[in-house]
Amino acid sequence: MIKVGVVGGTGYTGVELLRLLALHPQVSLTAITSRGEAGLPVADMFPSLRKRVDLRFVAPQDAALTECDVVFFATPNGIAMKQAAELVAAGVRVIDLAADFRIRDVAEWQKWYGMEHAAPELVAEAVYGLPEVNREQIRKARVLANPGCYPTAVQLGFLPLVEAGLVDTASLIADAKSGVSGAGRKAEVHALFSEAADSFKAYGVPGHRHLPEIRQGLARAAGAPVGLTFVPHLTPMIRGIHATLYAQLKTEVDLQALFEQRYASEPFVDVLPAGAHPETRSVRASNLCRIAVHRPQGGNVVVVLSVIDNLVKGAAGQAVQNMNIMFGLEESLGLDLVPVSP
Amino acid sequence: MIKVGVVGGTGYTGVELLRLLALHPQVSLTAITSRGEAGLPVADMFPSLRKRVDLRFVAPQDAALTECDVVFFATPNGIAMKQAAELVAAGVRVIDLAADFRIRDVAEWQKWYGMEHAAPELVAEAVYGLPEVNREQIRKARVLANPGCYPTAVQLGFLPLVEAGLVDTASLIADAKSGVSGAGRKAEVHALFSEAADSFKAYGVPGHRHLPEIRQGLARAAGAPVGLTFVPHLTPMIRGIHATLYAQLKTEVDLQALFEQRYASEPFVDVLPAGAHPETRSVRASNLCRIAVHRPQGGNVVVVLSVIDNLVKGAAGQAVQNMNIMFGLEESLGLDLVPVSP
Amino acid sequence: MIKVGVVGGTGYTGVELLRLLALHPQVSLTAITSRGEAGLPVADMFPSLRKRVDLRFVAPQDAALTECDVVFFATPNGIAMKQAAELVAAGVRVIDLAADFRIRDVAEWQKWYGMEHAAPELVAEAVYGLPEVNREQIRKARVLANPGCYPTAVQLGFLPLVEAGLVDTASLIADAKSGVSGAGRKAEVHALFSEAADSFKAYGVPGHRHLPEIRQGLARAAGAPVGLTFVPHLTPMIRGIHATLYAQLKTEVDLQALFEQRYASEPFVDVLPAGAHPETRSVRASNLCRIAVHRPQGGNVVVVLSVIDNLVKGAAGQAVQNMNIMFGLEESLGLDLVPVSP
Amino acid sequence: MIKVGVVGGTGYTGVELLRLLALHPQVSLTAITSRGEAGLPVADMFPSLRKRVDLRFVAPQDAALTECDVVFFATPNGIAMKQAAELVAAGVRVIDLAADFRIRDVAEWQKWYGMEHAAPELVAEAVYGLPEVNREQIRKARVLANPGCYPTAVQLGFLPLVEAGLVDTASLIADAKSGVSGAGRKAEVHALFSEAADSFKAYGVPGHRHLPEIRQGLARAAGAPVGLTFVPHLTPMIRGIHATLYAQLKTEVDLQALFEQRYASEPFVDVLPAGAHPETRSVRASNLCRIAVHRPQGGNVVVVLSVIDNLVKGAAGQAVQNMNIMFGLEESLGLDLVPVSP
Repeated sequence: MIKVGVVGGTGYTGVELLRLLALHPQVSLTAITSRGEAGLPVADMFPSLRKRVDLRFVAPQDAALTECDVVFFATPNGIAMKQAAELVAAGVRVIDLAADFRIRDVAEWQKWYGMEHAAPELVAEAVYGLPEVNREQIRKARVLANPGCYPTAVQLGFLPLVEAGLVDTASLIADAKSGVSGAGRKAEVHALFSEAADSFKAYGVPGHRHLPEIRQGLARAAGAPVGLTFVPHLTPMIRGIHATLYAQLKTEVDLQALFEQRYASEPFVDVLPAGAHPETRSVRASNLCRIAVHRPQGGNVVVVLSVIDNLVKGAAGQAVQNMNIMFGLEESLGLDLVPVSP
Repeated sequence: MIKVGVVGGTGYTGVELLRLLALHPQVSLTAITSRGEAGLPVADMFPSLRKRVDLRFVAPQDAALTECDVVFFATPNGIAMKQAAELVAAGVRVIDLAADFRIRDVAEWQKWYGMEHAAPELVAEAVYGLPEVNREQIRKARVLANPGCYPTAVQLGFLPLVEAGLVDTASLIADAKSGVSGAGRKAEVHALFSEAADSFKAYGVPGHRHLPEIRQGLARAAGAPVGLTFVPHLTPMIRGIHATLYAQLKTEVDLQALFEQRYASEPFVDVLPAGAHPETRSVRASNLCRIAVHRPQGGNVVVVLSVIDNLVKGAAGQAVQNMNIMFGLEESLGLDLVPVSP
Repeated sequence: MIKVGVVGGTGYTGVELLRLLALHPQVSLTAITSRGEAGLPVADMFPSLRKRVDLRFVAPQDAALTECDVVFFATPNGIAMKQAAELVAAGVRVIDLAADFRIRDVAEWQKWYGMEHAAPELVAEAVYGLPEVNREQIRKARVLANPGCYPTAVQLGFLPLVEAGLVDTASLIADAKSGVSGAGRKAEVHALFSEAADSFKAYGVPGHRHLPEIRQGLARAAGAPVGLTFVPHLTPMIRGIHATLYAQLKTEVDLQALFEQRYASEPFVDVLPAGAHPETRSVRASNLCRIAVHRPQGGNVVVVLSVIDNLVKGAAGQAVQNMNIMFGLEESLGLDLVPVSP
Repeated sequence: MIKVGVVGGTGYTGVELLRLLALHPQVSLTAITSRGEAGLPVADMFPSLRKRVDLRFVAPQDAALTECDVVFFATPNGIAMKQAAELVAAGVRVIDLAADFRIRDVAEWQKWYGMEHAAPELVAEAVYGLPEVNREQIRKARVLANPGCYPTAVQLGFLPLVEAGLVDTASLIADAKSGVSGAGRKAEVHALFSEAADSFKAYGVPGHRHLPEIRQGLARAAGAPVGLTFVPHLTPMIRGIHATLYAQLKTEVDLQALFEQRYASEPFVDVLPAGAHPETRSVRASNLCRIAVHRPQGGNVVVVLSVIDNLVKGAAGQAVQNMNIMFGLEESLGLDLVPVSP
């Protein structure tokens, strides 16, 4: 059994992580910390976990995290970078679901996240946890940067095209739509039901923090910097991301075969038949990414449709997938969830 | 492994049943029939089942249902009653998720369902599949009548009070609210998104088919006929039933203790602490019923709040629970789902 | 033109009031105050009002409210009671959309609202603004207590029965369902989209502040105290209240005729034909209350279904209706809105 | 008073048109036809219209449409083209809310709409009713082709850029999102609440009927054919279209000033301040189009955000706006609606 600690379990990423860990046959949940809720039974805050998670939140300083095999940070940005070094020194592996270790260029990170980085040396060794790209490095990672939700959906959609050098990487467009749970479980007016329901809007068009993360990943795949326009939108649904990706094709290619071959051995990427339109609900509550590729009217614009559940493949599920890899378990252990639909 | 057939797998009850059967470790899915969709891969209709259910729909006459150990009917009312006798004769056990075998009084059934019953003799032997009441008979059932969604939520809420003779059974009130999936996957205007979203209404106030089923169950518990007003409502959510129940208390009693004791050993009924208000999402995609009991201002009106997922404990999950009982398996096998929330 | 001031225009009641006042042909909007947003153009906070409301929020102390003919308080409870006396003294009529003047028994008010009342003498003279009951007193009111949303829907549904003495007033039940906008535009976790969407729950079963208000109104109609069980629920929709009311009939009566006659001359109460089930969307964005009355299976339980838009007839629209009455205008002036459906 | 007939009033476009016509001070509603619902009071089908529309549906052959001043067709595609000639011959002006007269190239129309055109000669004289482009021709139109919903949002967003020749018209991208009411009030599974709620998907990527209409309009503005990729998506909301438009800038320009000047005198186009992100709810139930223009990170990609209510500016409201122009009325008569938000 793997002894698991969770730092910051009171958000949506946290409760979803607890759901998945509760279902995992090789996990022993040891501690769940919360600064504000110490002493409260976890299931009092999240009744969906009654009789499945019996722990109480414990104050960070009282948690024996150094006795864990792995610690997940489901915290706001800027927390893990302060605590990871001590855990790593104690031989504990760290999986950060926030953004602290995602951007290799520390100056760039500091610009977008508006704070000084507390552990630049760990950034250098941290592994970016997109298994479809990085599986081998993930095995040995001491600090794992779990990818962002938009970056997961967008990279998985673009990678086959970019890796193969088939599209103009100077003019990529990612029009992405997210459910409201992506905004987190913070008491903020813009995320109220009466604000977000029955309405649709773009946000962050001048610049969103996931932009540099996506650019970094695509640049690595392309072997050169890329030009990307990224527009996120808020959709009146709880879970799900739908990325609609546009690229200019440079050469002829069998797109369907390209995508199917790229992901043939991936347990969590499902390339749909030609002509399909994936719905976010087809991956709801599962760790799957479903992708369809189109070439409207046979022109030179490729349109890729990529859907994930932002809380699973876009956060907690991918984190568990990474844990499985890091600990030599079957990659899909505890993650063989059938999507909940309708 | 139990060889399982499903008749009529194209509705919401059907797809949820397939999700649960795909997760069940002792089930071998043998045949899924559909009159209209024969030949179509099941996962083409329900992409959420891609790579989890590999069968194609097969025409009813081509399905070797008599070779199954158990056949589920996820069909409209009036189908199972025509096919059950042949299956029973062949030693196949039948679980009907529709209403054909729920009402013991055949004349009453015919009045409410508007058709002649094709197998009154099977009604007599059929077992009503509410395990919290009927577990022993379920074990031996050849024909199992899986309860309706409203009847499950309402009976589980009223039973402790009625069985103990604590309330006036002449004036029971059940004000119930259901998600739209309860209306099924039929192309009907009233269930369109633009009709049902962002709105709320009652329906069937003059009389709903679940009324005689609830009355029958409560009368059995009371040992005498009961008076019940039942008002169902349509709620703009996909899944979930919330029953708000009102009864006049006749004697003093510790309500909280009563409910906790009644359900102490039930794996799928969770009595919440005093003062709680269960949300339907706290049982979403699980087989749980969560109940809270109140006595506002200490008066003599008891208010019980009872929530289920109409497609799970209200249909497919309860059917699998019944199958587990019928085949001597652990009752919660394949049903240890953690609710999906948010 | 009536010179109108609005105190506290940053909530949902406030923005809806501004929408209605912007459409009103006899209103001159003079000042909209906000402590926190002084200086901000109102339309920057509420883009729906761009080019229709050109004012900026002004700090309370800088607003020339005493020069208005009428001032609406769209504030939290406890604000109007502190400011009303000064305005009344200056000859300004006050319409409070909060609860400060709704309960005649000041001790009772203080118990439910958890604060000391600052103007008990104004409570004594304040008029409860339910025009269907109180039209004559409203005309002369200096301080008008605009009814709560639930109390409006519940009272209009029960009044014909209670006024005529036809039902047992000791055992009334009001099972009410509200859209989430009823919780206001406050940043609170329980009202987040990801908390409230696709779920349903009861709240406040032990006791809700609207209970004494409803009891007071029904007692006035009955001429004696009444026994009422009131259970509010949160529904995943933005606007709308649906009250489902239960009462025991004491004598035979033509319920349909009773309701139609009671409301025959009311401009905003619409009694539906026998057998109907009103939907909340059928009154969305209008000042209407639609009512249907049922007697299931001909028994002695009356079921009344009453729907309103909680922000219009349940708040801002009723306030404008009251203003029209107070200033001798046609009662429906500016309120001849056609419900928005779908 | 203008005598108005409506052919086909049973869909969402129809009921919204009736709402607007009921509010219009210069309209006398004369006849509303329906093949299937003849004899039924309109308000029985649409309770939101009770006491506002007193007519019954009348069979098409029984409606004295030739006595009207104008007839609106709120019918499926292919109906107006068969009936318009007779009306025009009788001096009745025709406004078609369907697609029969939108595409000037009849062969192209036939390809996309899959039927033979019954009145090609009327196509030649029909006027495309986008007032922001075509106001003068609209005044004299005998047959008016009311634009599609997506085409309205997309054209209004692109027009300032394309008319001024500022962007590469070979690589335009329109990523558009629509509420479910755009699918109409037809009983179809894909538009059921339980299919469309809490999910998001693209559709029609290989080719959607609104593509040739948008291309035609932009080509007219550009003076040359354009290359456009158009991807529509289904969003879990009732009303609203959000178009996110991408274009490559060819020269430097003050985008904000360009848009503001282009629409300075337009009553129904609102250019938001720089940096804004319009929400669909900010135009809900109104005839407005709100637009914001962005240039992310100062690059050469222009991103335009354009929102409308698909049933109003995208259908019924624009039709009434066109009627006002055709009959010499003030253009916004009966359309000074304040958006309903929240």
